[in-house]
Amino acid sequence: MRISINANRCQPSPMRKFHPYAVEAQNMGKKIYHLNIGQPDLKTPDAFYAAVQHFNQKTLEYEASPGMPILIDQIRSYYKNLNVDLDNSDVLITTGGSEALLLTFLCIMDPYTEVIIPEPYYPNYTTFVHASGGVIRALPTSPEDGYRYAYRDRIESLITPNTRAIMITNPGNPTGVVLTKEEMRMVADIAKKHDLYLICDEVYREFCYDDAFGVPTMAMFDDIADNLVIIDSVSKRFSACGARVGCVVTKNKDLQAALLKMCQSRLSVATIDQIGAAALYSVDHKFFEKCKAEYKLRRDTVVSALRQIPGVMVEEPMGAFYVMASLPVDDTDKFQYWLLEEFSDQNETVMFAPGAPFYETPGKGINEVRIAYVLKKEDLERAIDLLGKGIARYRREVMGLEF
Amino acid sequence: MRISINANRCQPSPMRKFHPYAVEAQNMGKKIYHLNIGQPDLKTPDAFYAAVQHFNQKTLEYEASPGMPILIDQIRSYYKNLNVDLDNSDVLITTGGSEALLLTFLCIMDPYTEVIIPEPYYPNYTTFVHASGGVIRALPTSPEDGYRYAYRDRIESLITPNTRAIMITNPGNPTGVVLTKEEMRMVADIAKKHDLYLICDEVYREFCYDDAFGVPTMAMFDDIADNLVIIDSVSKRFSACGARVGCVVTKNKDLQAALLKMCQSRLSVATIDQIGAAALYSVDHKFFEKCKAEYKLRRDTVVSALRQIPGVMVEEPMGAFYVMASLPVDDTDKFQYWLLEEFSDQNETVMFAPGAPFYETPGKGINEVRIAYVLKKEDLERAIDLLGKGIARYRREVMGLEF
Repeated sequence: MRISINANRCQPSPMRKFHPYAVEAQNMGKKIYHLNIGQPDLKTPDAFYAAVQHFNQKTLEYEASPGMPILIDQIRSYYKNLNVDLDNSDVLITTGGSEALLLTFLCIMDPYTEVIIPEPYYPNYTTFVHASGGVIRALPTSPEDGYRYAYRDRIESLITPNTRAIMITNPGNPTGVVLTKEEMRMVADIAKKHDLYLICDEVYREFCYDDAFGVPTMAMFDDIADNLVIIDSVSKRFSACGARVGCVVTKNKDLQAALLKMCQSRLSVATIDQIGAAALYSVDHKFFEKCKAEYKLRRDTVVSALRQIPGVMVEEPMGAFYVMASLPVDDTDKFQYWLLEEFSDQNETVMFAPGAPFYETPGKGINEVRIAYVLKKEDLERAIDLLGKGIARYRREVMGLEF
Repeated sequence: MRISINANRCQPSPMRKFHPYAVEAQNMGKKIYHLNIGQPDLKTPDAFYAAVQHFNQKTLEYEASPGMPILIDQIRSYYKNLNVDLDNSDVLITTGGSEALLLTFLCIMDPYTEVIIPEPYYPNYTTFVHASGGVIRALPTSPEDGYRYAYRDRIESLITPNTRAIMITNPGNPTGVVLTKEEMRMVADIAKKHDLYLICDEVYREFCYDDAFGVPTMAMFDDIADNLVIIDSVSKRFSACGARVGCVVTKNKDLQAALLKMCQSRLSVATIDQIGAAALYSVDHKFFEKCKAEYKLRRDTVVSALRQIPGVMVEEPMGAFYVMASLPVDDTDKFQYWLLEEFSDQNETVMFAPGAPFYETPGKGINEVRIAYVLKKEDLERAIDLLGKGIARYRREVMGLEF
């Protein structure tokens, strides 16, 4: 029996491969500071649990395949507040942003067709693209340039007759890069000119730490309505990752019809979570402001602490809750194993996500890490302190160097 | 912008295309008896809601990608009661049986590879197979033979160098066919001999109306552990379709690894629903007996009522909660539109699922219907009464015939 070529093209999650080593370290009594996964620690609004607890239905039934009207209405209102008018049929509820991505790629990619994605990017994109038989054409960036990617000539140079889509994450995971309005317009123009889908993963939309960005969405450009596919989710927005509720937003009628066929085949999204998610969209707008202020404080804490470590290079990210940094070590993957197995300071150590799996280009990212600042300030300070101590000892003991 | 070839190969759900006509009929004051969808009306056990209501977690987090240990443990115990020993890694929790099917086909099918499926079959299989680029080779059956398909020569005649899998639904949807133990062994032997995956959708396992069948599972055959992929779900078993919790059960290590990559890419299944599903597995065994007795009564009601209608051909189904029947009309699709638009008896009408979309072979099933017996006895009697009256009037007024 064979495994499909497309499944063989996928990789295990780089974030999860250290899990057994982390368990081992914990069993030996080590405390680990987790900067490795994008799991927010902020409280899920009570509205979610209240709605779930009040749910009462004799038989827990399949709901409508495109999503429950109560949730679609809430999402339309949310977009209305961003000055985006949506029809009911423009929103398809999915099991998280993850299903939104998988179904979108299954609907637009044929084997060997290409999607242009700035690297570094969220590693699970690879699985979704490869599952559809597609190929990722990586748009290169550099740490020195703060991982910015919106350069017309570089993007256009990657377009071939087989290009189906440009995909961006804005604000970016893992880089925290946020596009200016002019850059967004330019990327939109490229998609329009070359008749490409523009897939925008905007799940971190509310997390922009400069008021100039506002709450950015590509949906502000009416003239690319046919090109645009927005991936959205309640996971980060409301600290509700475990609800697995997201959506695809598109006005492209052909794509709507194709996605609807996929949605019908899997019948519906979990009822109770849709009801909880609908309630989340009614939380007071101050919730976003509070979350944003908290993450901004954390970003500032992490960036200034990282800058104290000799040899670390980091640009201040403008959004999301991640920062990419270059460390003065030979290989951050090897360094992570060492931190779990060999290192401890007062019986504590730290985890991050090694950079290489965020790149398509072989060899890139080998001395980079993604840090998720999803811990409270004091814990972040201690975590970066451990990182600095780890770097110094690793350079001395493993690499045979001194600063 | 293009839609992928594989998405273009999929069809909208045949069960859902009549929805606007049904809404129209209801708006005109008609009552509709729904025999068209497999949505059980039995009560979801209180255990589900109790577990959900007691769930309390400050932040609703991602759970482990293979599923929550509490649920995997319950499923292992459930299989243990069927004399099937499973390791933790043999069970991967999915968002319903639907996701289990999609991920399985993505992991085993390359473009143009083939899966053998007895027809008529559940139409959504087409979408899952086509999404992966695969092709369905239909194993023909006939209403006269009670839709039985376990004939070695017929199955083997469909095997080609590109065959990757044999897939069966046991008990069957839409036919209600249940394999004998000897037939199961024979199908297992074919898979083993030809080195094929054997995908068994066993979500209706508890609904067998002859004690001789017991609670059938292909997992009883240890020697095909490497071939076997079981699709399972809480939806029908516990009347909990809206929970969207299912699983893949396989001991094939390569397939486990491939599926795990897919599961990791979509992070996890909804937390609350997994907790509710775990509680469902602790309900008293009498629950299954009660459900089975109720469905058996309904089956007997439907079959004996159908046999009163002149020209209707029906075999008594042995499992699940569906029956296929041949009606003395020219086209059951056309007949369904007519029932919604032109027919009523005391302002009531009836819906079923027309047969053709359950077939791969063009032209087959055109005078057949699938009837889901998911209503209580009195309603079923009235529904079949309406069907009989509708057939008589349709033959007279549309076909120009008399019995």
